[in-house]
Amino acid sequence: MGIAAQGTDITDIEDFGRMGLIDFTHFVNELATSSGQAILPFFRTAIATEDKSRGGAFDPVTEADRAAEVAIRHLIKRSFPTHGIIGEEFGSENENADYVWVLDPIDGTRAFISGLPTWGTLIGLTYKGRPVFGMMHQPFTGERFFGDGGSATYRGPGGERKLMTRRCASLKDAVISTTSPRLFAGDDLRAYDRVESVARLARYGCDCYAYCMLAAGHIDLVVESGLKPYDIAALVPIIEGAGGIVTTWDGGSAAKGGRIVAAGDRRVHAAAVELLSR
Amino acid sequence: MGIAAQGTDITDIEDFGRMGLIDFTHFVNELATSSGQAILPFFRTAIATEDKSRGGAFDPVTEADRAAEVAIRHLIKRSFPTHGIIGEEFGSENENADYVWVLDPIDGTRAFISGLPTWGTLIGLTYKGRPVFGMMHQPFTGERFFGDGGSATYRGPGGERKLMTRRCASLKDAVISTTSPRLFAGDDLRAYDRVESVARLARYGCDCYAYCMLAAGHIDLVVESGLKPYDIAALVPIIEGAGGIVTTWDGGSAAKGGRIVAAGDRRVHAAAVELLSR
Repeated sequence: MGIAAQGTDITDIEDFGRMGLIDFTHFVNELATSSGQAILPFFRTAIATEDKSRGGAFDPVTEADRAAEVAIRHLIKRSFPTHGIIGEEFGSENENADYVWVLDPIDGTRAFISGLPTWGTLIGLTYKGRPVFGMMHQPFTGERFFGDGGSATYRGPGGERKLMTRRCASLKDAVISTTSPRLFAGDDLRAYDRVESVARLARYGCDCYAYCMLAAGHIDLVVESGLKPYDIAALVPIIEGAGGIVTTWDGGSAAKGGRIVAAGDRRVHAAAVELLSR
Repeated sequence: MGIAAQGTDITDIEDFGRMGLIDFTHFVNELATSSGQAILPFFRTAIATEDKSRGGAFDPVTEADRAAEVAIRHLIKRSFPTHGIIGEEFGSENENADYVWVLDPIDGTRAFISGLPTWGTLIGLTYKGRPVFGMMHQPFTGERFFGDGGSATYRGPGGERKLMTRRCASLKDAVISTTSPRLFAGDDLRAYDRVESVARLARYGCDCYAYCMLAAGHIDLVVESGLKPYDIAALVPIIEGAGGIVTTWDGGSAAKGGRIVAAGDRRVHAAAVELLSR
């Protein structure tokens, strides 16, 4: 990821943040390797689950989730003790630091416990609140998607290549994805349905994997609601680095989660935002 | 798959069919390797698609689909010229033969064109109408699920192991899957919703991959409608070989497709059939 940074003059905070990431790429790959080693022994085995949502939607927490976050936090604290950490499993530490790591060791726990490969480990880094580096690691398929907002890269079984979203002129040509149409309620469901009813094809249940397929140019639009910061912070620099756009439904920053719309082509993003806010 | 067959006396047609399969295991692995080589170059590339459904639900047909079926048909005709073939792409030949191959080169074309790994190549063999051997091959993840109704085997990145469904006493503990709740209409949707509303967790959009996760003990129930013979024939010997049960919603043979319910535990199957037929 160093090429974009090296070619950029350091003129503002954004460039400084990106420049600083040259040193983080190797480190984030280490985090991915370490967390993957913690997770994989639990994948497709009988694992302890519990319901932490107390009567809400089923929200499994696996031993793997915790083991991976422990491994990642240990490495961050050892290498960057002044950095903050926000994690799904173990909460926030020093979250007002300039650099804050935003972690979801298993995004897509429902897929994970069903044996499906459409989950991933999300490792994001924010600088003064702005996502500046992100990694999605799928240890079972051996795939890594990472980006710094200026460029994004895929490394998988077939080698390494740049990630680039594809052109899509119109919503009617778009392949769209959401976690589940049944997670929307009321006005949000009607808003989502206005988009899905125009689109060419809808896929469900892929969580972070859908955003990475958007970055890779296979999916055109992802529409979701109720996301936490750790569900999206790592994905923003990947999507933007691949040429896409990701915002809240009303066009604001996606960094804090909420109702999120991501597109590979700005025309599809604009069309979706128009239908979602109608 | 030879162990079960070798331990079985040949006393009836079913045993004869299974006995005959000892020679097919190696051959079916060849078919999987050959079709995988035909498909993979098209996965996650810009591919030509067309809509063969003429106004119905979106049903992409890829170049990969056709290339793989051509490769499989060529090998079958060369090695077993008297056998019949029923394929998704190129129709039926000699379909009244004792042995008939039932092929779906890419089951889960919607996942395939979206870059997702939850599709597979289905290669089934029927003897006098009864599915006696089946293979699901996922060439991107390098996974093979195959069975003969008496046993079933997984071969993947972590090695080879027996496939066994898991115990699940009650529908309320079940992880269920269907292609999309939006593919059901009218009474069928109400019937499906009666089942999903009781179950613990629902996953969508996995096609053949869901049945294989059922055989592997990670999913407990799959409920679908509108399946063609080539969508299910290869999966029956895998599910049954792993200890599961697969029938139509009214308890009949699954070999011809239609409305299908598969379960890892007979208690969940019985509960689902009761709700589906109410």
